[in-house]
Amino acid sequence: MGFRRPDGRVGTRNYIGVISTVNCSASTVRAIAERFKGDALRDYPTIDGVVAFTHKGGCGSRYGSREIHMLQRTLAGIARHPNVAAYIFVGLGCEVNQIQDLVSSQGLESDAPPLLVIQDEGGLLETVEAGTRAVASLLPRAASYRREVVPASELVVALQCGGSDSWSGVTGNPALGRAVDLLVAQGGTAALGETTEVYGAEHMLTRRASSPEVAEKLLQRIRWWEDYTARNGFEIDNNPAPGNKAGGLTTIYEKSLGAVAKGGSTPLNGVFEYAEPITARGFVHVDSPGYDPISVTGQVASGCNLVVFTTGRGSCFGCKPAPSIKVATNSALYNKMKNDMDVNAGQVLEGSSLDEVGAEIFDLMLAVASGEKSKSEKHGIGEEEFNPWILGAVL
Amino acid sequence: MGFRRPDGRVGTRNYIGVISTVNCSASTVRAIAERFKGDALRDYPTIDGVVAFTHKGGCGSRYGSREIHMLQRTLAGIARHPNVAAYIFVGLGCEVNQIQDLVSSQGLESDAPPLLVIQDEGGLLETVEAGTRAVASLLPRAASYRREVVPASELVVALQCGGSDSWSGVTGNPALGRAVDLLVAQGGTAALGETTEVYGAEHMLTRRASSPEVAEKLLQRIRWWEDYTARNGFEIDNNPAPGNKAGGLTTIYEKSLGAVAKGGSTPLNGVFEYAEPITARGFVHVDSPGYDPISVTGQVASGCNLVVFTTGRGSCFGCKPAPSIKVATNSALYNKMKNDMDVNAGQVLEGSSLDEVGAEIFDLMLAVASGEKSKSEKHGIGEEEFNPWILGAVL
Repeated sequence: MGFRRPDGRVGTRNYIGVISTVNCSASTVRAIAERFKGDALRDYPTIDGVVAFTHKGGCGSRYGSREIHMLQRTLAGIARHPNVAAYIFVGLGCEVNQIQDLVSSQGLESDAPPLLVIQDEGGLLETVEAGTRAVASLLPRAASYRREVVPASELVVALQCGGSDSWSGVTGNPALGRAVDLLVAQGGTAALGETTEVYGAEHMLTRRASSPEVAEKLLQRIRWWEDYTARNGFEIDNNPAPGNKAGGLTTIYEKSLGAVAKGGSTPLNGVFEYAEPITARGFVHVDSPGYDPISVTGQVASGCNLVVFTTGRGSCFGCKPAPSIKVATNSALYNKMKNDMDVNAGQVLEGSSLDEVGAEIFDLMLAVASGEKSKSEKHGIGEEEFNPWILGAVL
Repeated sequence: MGFRRPDGRVGTRNYIGVISTVNCSASTVRAIAERFKGDALRDYPTIDGVVAFTHKGGCGSRYGSREIHMLQRTLAGIARHPNVAAYIFVGLGCEVNQIQDLVSSQGLESDAPPLLVIQDEGGLLETVEAGTRAVASLLPRAASYRREVVPASELVVALQCGGSDSWSGVTGNPALGRAVDLLVAQGGTAALGETTEVYGAEHMLTRRASSPEVAEKLLQRIRWWEDYTARNGFEIDNNPAPGNKAGGLTTIYEKSLGAVAKGGSTPLNGVFEYAEPITARGFVHVDSPGYDPISVTGQVASGCNLVVFTTGRGSCFGCKPAPSIKVATNSALYNKMKNDMDVNAGQVLEGSSLDEVGAEIFDLMLAVASGEKSKSEKHGIGEEEFNPWILGAVL
């Protein structure tokens, strides 16, 4: 069950977004969202909350640059996200990421979102008041959306792994791959991310590409990453983190072979840039770094309405506006972090089959999409983890 | 008046810091700090608050890299900041910015700070409980510090301009320069930042350098910036933001000539890297981008215990743990954003002298350093603006 939006897409949650154009308006954005905590929404039980989307970027960059455009695409992806019923933007005024450019470059004029500019409103307090009124004016429309029965094909699931260990490629990731195959069989969509964790295993994806163009787009992104890391004096093999190595992973090749298993076995139907709207169905890829919060932010901004996150070392990740399901790759972790883990894929080492755990993950996808709260949602996690990829130098 | 710390430095505020090693522990850090809001500190009136220092970095980088080292230096600069009486670090566990590396690379062992690792504690809730206990255990020590009379020479003031206009170089910045001359005459320290806004006016600083080495260090940083922006396809002249141009500034050269006026007229006694501890007295420079929150975060991490921020377009900036005084460059702005502006340098256009406004700024520096709340402090601003410079590519 989900919330059907005017554009036909289906949300799994019903949030209102207060979105910052620049770090300089972030405190104001938090203060506006704060006004809707506690009992403030008691008359609107169908609204899941008012979420502050703040970040550290938006200025110190080149006006009109690709970098600013990518941030605008990310913010627009949240604004237009199927889990966001309505939104406002809040800017300072003098920043490089101009609020009017954001709206026009992303084609958001028809949403007619309230646009608040601190330098025009006359300061922090004045903008918090105006923003609170603006959000209040959106409540009736947001509340008018109701959960309705929708097919599983409306799910767009972000696939992610974080804090991987040597079990990730044996239990959690292939089990998630089975769930993805079930989802795709129903007409749904699942998006891999973390291009730096596909590196070295890209042949396993290109040979499944539904067309030469899709394969070539993936290889183009891989080449971009090789160039980008070289220009910055890195290697992609610098990716495995200390925790990965403590968990038994040696190189990016080993990590990647396990990571791509999340994608199941169906054809690769599309490759999208960071926060670019996903327009294909089935199994796709969204270009993004391996750093989890940045990668998931891109997948969600591309339209994913649910996240499934496997972990061997442990995590308490969430990423609003999408709910996140966390899958432990081993029972020791599952038992240790029971309050954070939704599924124990360590069962595979104790007699369960990958198909059984895959079916369990798929069932939980449907349940959480239909409103059941995941562990991280129960804890209210997911604002800090909004982490747009800030590309390029800061001036 | 200020809080004298064991290392002899003097704080203008008395905070406890809860510091995140990585974005993946940021929600946990916020939840710990949240426990000390409201009435929780009523028995500790000498403690100004428990501050969550969260950020978007800490992983997706190369283990042992210069980039991670710079983040560690920034976090250590907050931990050891004279306005921070005590602190704890909170990490996830698997991140590139390993909590033990942070402590050992920055020589923090002697502080014996509580180190909480989510993957060791067993999850979010468990870490919030442990972190709350850890902070509670620090309260008596933090509360034992008392404001005492100290000379003005203990002030280390971050000089910043943001949302500059064509009046910035005529009123706000030179008035702040007069205040800096008064401060330096008392033996105090003032740190310029924003190297990209010194660009084109660096000769005005090098000719004041107290030694050829100091001048050469500034020129080295300028050359680094030329190389860094070229490698990333930028020019430093991309710096003026849309609001600067709407405010009448044309190029970085014009902006810079106004910007360096904040530094007054005394010799340049030192040039420091981002978040590198300031070890000279008098007028110094801290290398940082022009983007205000990133620049001030570096200045504060270098040890600045007060910020003075001039603005022509308007701002509601704050940057904990240091209080920020905001100076309007024109009366129209001052009147429009009265709740955010502390000083009106627009008076210079209405008959006051730069010396008079400079003296007013200097007096307010002393008052705020001694405990008077600045406008942004009254509004509780300054956590979102903690914005460490994340250098290099994200993997």
